[in-house]
Amino acid sequence: MTTIKDVAKKAGVSFKTVSRVLNNDTAVRDSTRAKVLAAIEALDYQPNIVARSLRSQRTHTIGFLTDSIATTPYAGQILQGAQDLAWEHNILLLTVTTNGDQKMKQTAVNTLLNRQVDGIIYATMYHREVHPPDNIRDVPAVLLDCYVADQSLPSVVPDELAGGREVVEYLINKGHRRIGFICDQANVPAKIGRLQGYKEMLAAHNIPFDPDLLHMGESMQNGGYQCAMAIMQQPNPPTALFCYNDRMAMGAYDALRKLNLTIPEDVAIVGFDNQELIAAHLYPPLTTMELPHYQMGQWAVNHLLGLIEEPEAVSAVQQKLPCPVIVRLSA
Amino acid sequence: MTTIKDVAKKAGVSFKTVSRVLNNDTAVRDSTRAKVLAAIEALDYQPNIVARSLRSQRTHTIGFLTDSIATTPYAGQILQGAQDLAWEHNILLLTVTTNGDQKMKQTAVNTLLNRQVDGIIYATMYHREVHPPDNIRDVPAVLLDCYVADQSLPSVVPDELAGGREVVEYLINKGHRRIGFICDQANVPAKIGRLQGYKEMLAAHNIPFDPDLLHMGESMQNGGYQCAMAIMQQPNPPTALFCYNDRMAMGAYDALRKLNLTIPEDVAIVGFDNQELIAAHLYPPLTTMELPHYQMGQWAVNHLLGLIEEPEAVSAVQQKLPCPVIVRLSA
Repeated sequence: MTTIKDVAKKAGVSFKTVSRVLNNDTAVRDSTRAKVLAAIEALDYQPNIVARSLRSQRTHTIGFLTDSIATTPYAGQILQGAQDLAWEHNILLLTVTTNGDQKMKQTAVNTLLNRQVDGIIYATMYHREVHPPDNIRDVPAVLLDCYVADQSLPSVVPDELAGGREVVEYLINKGHRRIGFICDQANVPAKIGRLQGYKEMLAAHNIPFDPDLLHMGESMQNGGYQCAMAIMQQPNPPTALFCYNDRMAMGAYDALRKLNLTIPEDVAIVGFDNQELIAAHLYPPLTTMELPHYQMGQWAVNHLLGLIEEPEAVSAVQQKLPCPVIVRLSA
Repeated sequence: MTTIKDVAKKAGVSFKTVSRVLNNDTAVRDSTRAKVLAAIEALDYQPNIVARSLRSQRTHTIGFLTDSIATTPYAGQILQGAQDLAWEHNILLLTVTTNGDQKMKQTAVNTLLNRQVDGIIYATMYHREVHPPDNIRDVPAVLLDCYVADQSLPSVVPDELAGGREVVEYLINKGHRRIGFICDQANVPAKIGRLQGYKEMLAAHNIPFDPDLLHMGESMQNGGYQCAMAIMQQPNPPTALFCYNDRMAMGAYDALRKLNLTIPEDVAIVGFDNQELIAAHLYPPLTTMELPHYQMGQWAVNHLLGLIEEPEAVSAVQQKLPCPVIVRLSA
């Protein structure tokens, strides 16, 4: 069956443009309209009548359900990315923060559905598995920075594995062979992925994994401080530290100062998250991996708009977005 | 004219309880109901019919319009406080983030009004003057961490002046007489209030204001670093530093380490904001003033609920909430 995406591809335009032509949007240029109509004819495209009928009743609002993105200092750029793209399409995000309260989640979804949002984005502060209320599926829905175990809803998450690999490769390219990993003790997807990436890239460079260079603690400044103190005071300390997140790196900075070790001369440090308020403001500024919060927010809205346009066209998928290295002075 | 608040006062109960009695809420205890009915009779209270009629059409949602509280790491607890209290009343906050875009603000207010929210809270990331769309006044509205110049809408803001006074008093009580102030260069209400408080409390203790002890810079880590470097390298440096915010204090920490000065032995430091991610996690942990974000959020919802119950009963008011000192190890 031909879909709107096939038409868009053949005409060399975005699916939004095809949608505009179908809706007789007069802002579309005549030459573009002609290309789209030719593609529709060539492919014998039949717009889904039910979907088009629903489309005409759109409220131009998207429900944005989140645990605590809006109330904590960690992942606000997820909302910013989603909102900026939504606003480009003249769509308003109605955000509800639930703090993980199950009853509140259910009430929130009901309220959003009653207000006839065109779709729902379900977003979490950090990458994890979620159990959204069932009726989230009554409208097109996308998971942001989270996923359901059976992958039956589309989702977008950071590529933790590739991020972990890239940190190690970056440090190896700087000449390091003894690379410590100060890691979260909790078994969250970020920890599992980054740790696997760390081990894989060491192996790819024929560096044996040394358990003495892996220390785990609470993923906060104090955990980073404790781990750095321990890892640097052993007989054969590392020359570089991969810190699970920028908060642990901030604690590691304090430990290294206490030990009279300079960054990056004595020990190079790479963090993870590119945490606003911290990463760029440490002394020296921290080289770190950026979580693609803004980009994930944009991906989620873009994917949701596709589902709203054509609910049957897009199947569930998990998109992993890369975590780019942000080079500053610590490594 | 007798109001619901007069009845509540006479009966010795909250206005919510009076409201429940008026709405025949069966959850009210008989003894309480009797007290309320007696007070209604004694005062000859006539419930406003229009208000009660409107009340019965309530949607149990509040629109929460904000510039960037939800997308930045600074003031999420404003939303948390508002939401926790709203949820206690089974009211859902529908949050819209506008990033200060005027067109988006107008669209957001229109959208919330179309969805028949019971009232609107307009909140900002930091204490400042705002110009909300006029039709925000079509429903009960409260300003949170901001105000309109003519004070024609009720608002809640931090008591910056008292906060500035308290920092200086705290340091004087610790024995300091030469107290430097590392201050924001922008003329925002927080700067104006805290600076006035600093000067007032010095004067109250007969300590002359010394312009050499006041340095202004960008209210970020680097501004704090620059100011601390300058203020500590003059001939007669202070023994204590009041930093405008915790980010400037974090920069001051780096400057003092660079100068081989220890905190608090050589220089005591007090910050402002109790910024999550920073204040408790500096080395040593930072003594600072807490911005009453959570409490302001709660105040705004509570005041708005009063306005929704009885739009004519509560006039515009500006409530200032105190910024309590959070004692840690830096002073």
